[in-house]
Amino acid sequence: MSIEHHQHPPVHPPRRTLMGPGPSDVSASVLAALGAPTVGHLDPYFLKVMDEVQDMLREIFQTRNELTLAVSGTGSSGMEACVVNLLEAGDKIVVCTNGVFGGRMADVAGRIGAEVVQIERPFGEVFSVEEIKEVLEKEKPKVLGIVHAETSTGAAQPLKEISEAVHEADALLLVDCVTSLGGMPVKVDEWNIDAAYSGTQKCLSCPPGLAPVTFSSRAVAAMDARKTKVSSWYLDMSMVRSYWGDSRAYHHTAPINMNYGLHQALRLVLEEGLENRFSRHYSNHCALKAGLKAIGVEFAVAEDHQLPMLNAVKIPDGIDDATIRGQLLKWFGIEIGGGLGPMKGKTWRIGLMGESSCNTNVLQFLSALELCLLQAGYELPPGASVAAANDFYRTTITG
Amino acid sequence: MSIEHHQHPPVHPPRRTLMGPGPSDVSASVLAALGAPTVGHLDPYFLKVMDEVQDMLREIFQTRNELTLAVSGTGSSGMEACVVNLLEAGDKIVVCTNGVFGGRMADVAGRIGAEVVQIERPFGEVFSVEEIKEVLEKEKPKVLGIVHAETSTGAAQPLKEISEAVHEADALLLVDCVTSLGGMPVKVDEWNIDAAYSGTQKCLSCPPGLAPVTFSSRAVAAMDARKTKVSSWYLDMSMVRSYWGDSRAYHHTAPINMNYGLHQALRLVLEEGLENRFSRHYSNHCALKAGLKAIGVEFAVAEDHQLPMLNAVKIPDGIDDATIRGQLLKWFGIEIGGGLGPMKGKTWRIGLMGESSCNTNVLQFLSALELCLLQAGYELPPGASVAAANDFYRTTITG
Repeated sequence: MSIEHHQHPPVHPPRRTLMGPGPSDVSASVLAALGAPTVGHLDPYFLKVMDEVQDMLREIFQTRNELTLAVSGTGSSGMEACVVNLLEAGDKIVVCTNGVFGGRMADVAGRIGAEVVQIERPFGEVFSVEEIKEVLEKEKPKVLGIVHAETSTGAAQPLKEISEAVHEADALLLVDCVTSLGGMPVKVDEWNIDAAYSGTQKCLSCPPGLAPVTFSSRAVAAMDARKTKVSSWYLDMSMVRSYWGDSRAYHHTAPINMNYGLHQALRLVLEEGLENRFSRHYSNHCALKAGLKAIGVEFAVAEDHQLPMLNAVKIPDGIDDATIRGQLLKWFGIEIGGGLGPMKGKTWRIGLMGESSCNTNVLQFLSALELCLLQAGYELPPGASVAAANDFYRTTITG
Repeated sequence: MSIEHHQHPPVHPPRRTLMGPGPSDVSASVLAALGAPTVGHLDPYFLKVMDEVQDMLREIFQTRNELTLAVSGTGSSGMEACVVNLLEAGDKIVVCTNGVFGGRMADVAGRIGAEVVQIERPFGEVFSVEEIKEVLEKEKPKVLGIVHAETSTGAAQPLKEISEAVHEADALLLVDCVTSLGGMPVKVDEWNIDAAYSGTQKCLSCPPGLAPVTFSSRAVAAMDARKTKVSSWYLDMSMVRSYWGDSRAYHHTAPINMNYGLHQALRLVLEEGLENRFSRHYSNHCALKAGLKAIGVEFAVAEDHQLPMLNAVKIPDGIDDATIRGQLLKWFGIEIGGGLGPMKGKTWRIGLMGESSCNTNVLQFLSALELCLLQAGYELPPGASVAAANDFYRTTITG
């Protein structure tokens, strides 16, 4: 068998600035940890790494939940792990859908024979506690699923009052924290969240490949009371938790090096401190917003519900989505995201997540976008310029 | 919130020689590739990496199957992907169980409501074409699942005649190649395998985290003819294949850096050449066997069915499993595996997989094992010594 023509060149990725909906920029120390020597999945050293990952995840989820770990798949596997462990065929879930990821949760639940009731809001809007109370009273579900930070729309969903309503209705609260964790407060215990999942490639700034999850004691009790096996062997938490827990029973071979990388990424989050990290995400969001306003680009989400780490903006009239994103990537090495679902071609999604949330990225992006827009014949509003963002940053943030 | 006590030290794994059932030793160039800068999951560069990974996987699976890719999870997720895509509730599968992984396949299939018929062989034995023909005739299943290289027992299952019988019975052949791929021939097209899955951490010598899979056109036709959605959203190949295929439709965010690592690992396999690689695995297996024979340690599997990359041997009478494995790890940094299921405490599993299959590992392990056994009061057979293995290697292999 000839192999000459199959010898592809070694991996040598181009330099990128990752300002899309994730993955975000990864620090050099996380990349180095990824490349640390592999040990066995039951090696005493790796078991210690697993314990420390759990410990740090608890701190970042702001929880004491024993069952807190990293599922061996990307963020969507964390969603599936939560849904299929909490629900059996015939169980009812209410899914609050105001973007792609609420819709995905409904799809996942429907596949295992759960009874799925969706309440919907247009993309970019959020749910009020009143409408949640209404659907809970009417449907009496086992679980209510909702997205904290809709990656597809850039909308932030307030959770505290909704959680109270869910628990008054004796249901379990399942929350998608894929984009919020590490970039804005996710207070699992204070907000009484029963199950939450996230991804590593957003505000934790680790490459994709693991899904942090946490389950309350109420959720664990519900899982222990199941009458049937979990539909997925790979994601069955009754076995996964034995491997991550004291018994260390072999279930599957964990992605050793991915866990090294996550360990280092979590160290960086805690070294910075959660409050400092949230402030940084917010400041850079404000700087970006000021700069976009200066060049006349508007947000797609109302002021009150804008996410700090994912900025969905309206593509100006007459501007072609793919052309501008292509130029940003080709000329400047900057990746931003296009819209999903009904927002496709109408919005851009500009991520300022984790390592990517920094003032140099904000200013590089603004100047690059301005240049691309001018090339495309876009007319800046009178007196507008990127200097306005710079001024904002200098005077307001860095004082 | 105080964070001082949560600051765990950075990842700094001990030096290990990985001679268990996987993960195997990982070359420096694969570790370096893992740590290459992350780009977006739809970046033109990453799409090229995905294409090349598929291309190289096809060569290593010895197939032209279009639908050949790396599932975004560990080997067990590859098993689940194959099972849940090929089967719907009510479909019948015959699973041939002669070890832990056959049993796992039956468990996975049962969870989605498939009708599961198991035929069994004691751990360490393999199935004859006659008993396969018999069960096919009696059960008329949609799928027959079998393990090529049982990682739990070290037994190699011949496949070619079984495949003919399966196709005469108009069934699909599903094969577990987790431990065989890259270490012994896996001829997907020549043997008419309809679906096969593997892991990265065995003979491909990449860290765990991805599961290579391949599906024949017959398997794809069966999947296209499904009446119901696949039970798992995350593993639904009808969507996963759109992301890996020409449409590049977003499904989930692939583990970018794990794919970099796999890309480099596959490059190394093809650079060596499949035949050379299989010969190397076989030679080192023979050297290990000669050395073990010299110190009186016997194989748990009959000569005809021994795997070259996973050597299951009987723990000598009076020797404590955990003590010896603990000493090998602590004193020599060598990891070997214990037995699984009914073989627990009775066998050791010595892996010579991928990078770990080398003469230095064989000789280091033999001398280390000899020392540990002597410490434990084991009496070598008259005239025995590790020198016999050395002689074998020098005269027979490097001759």
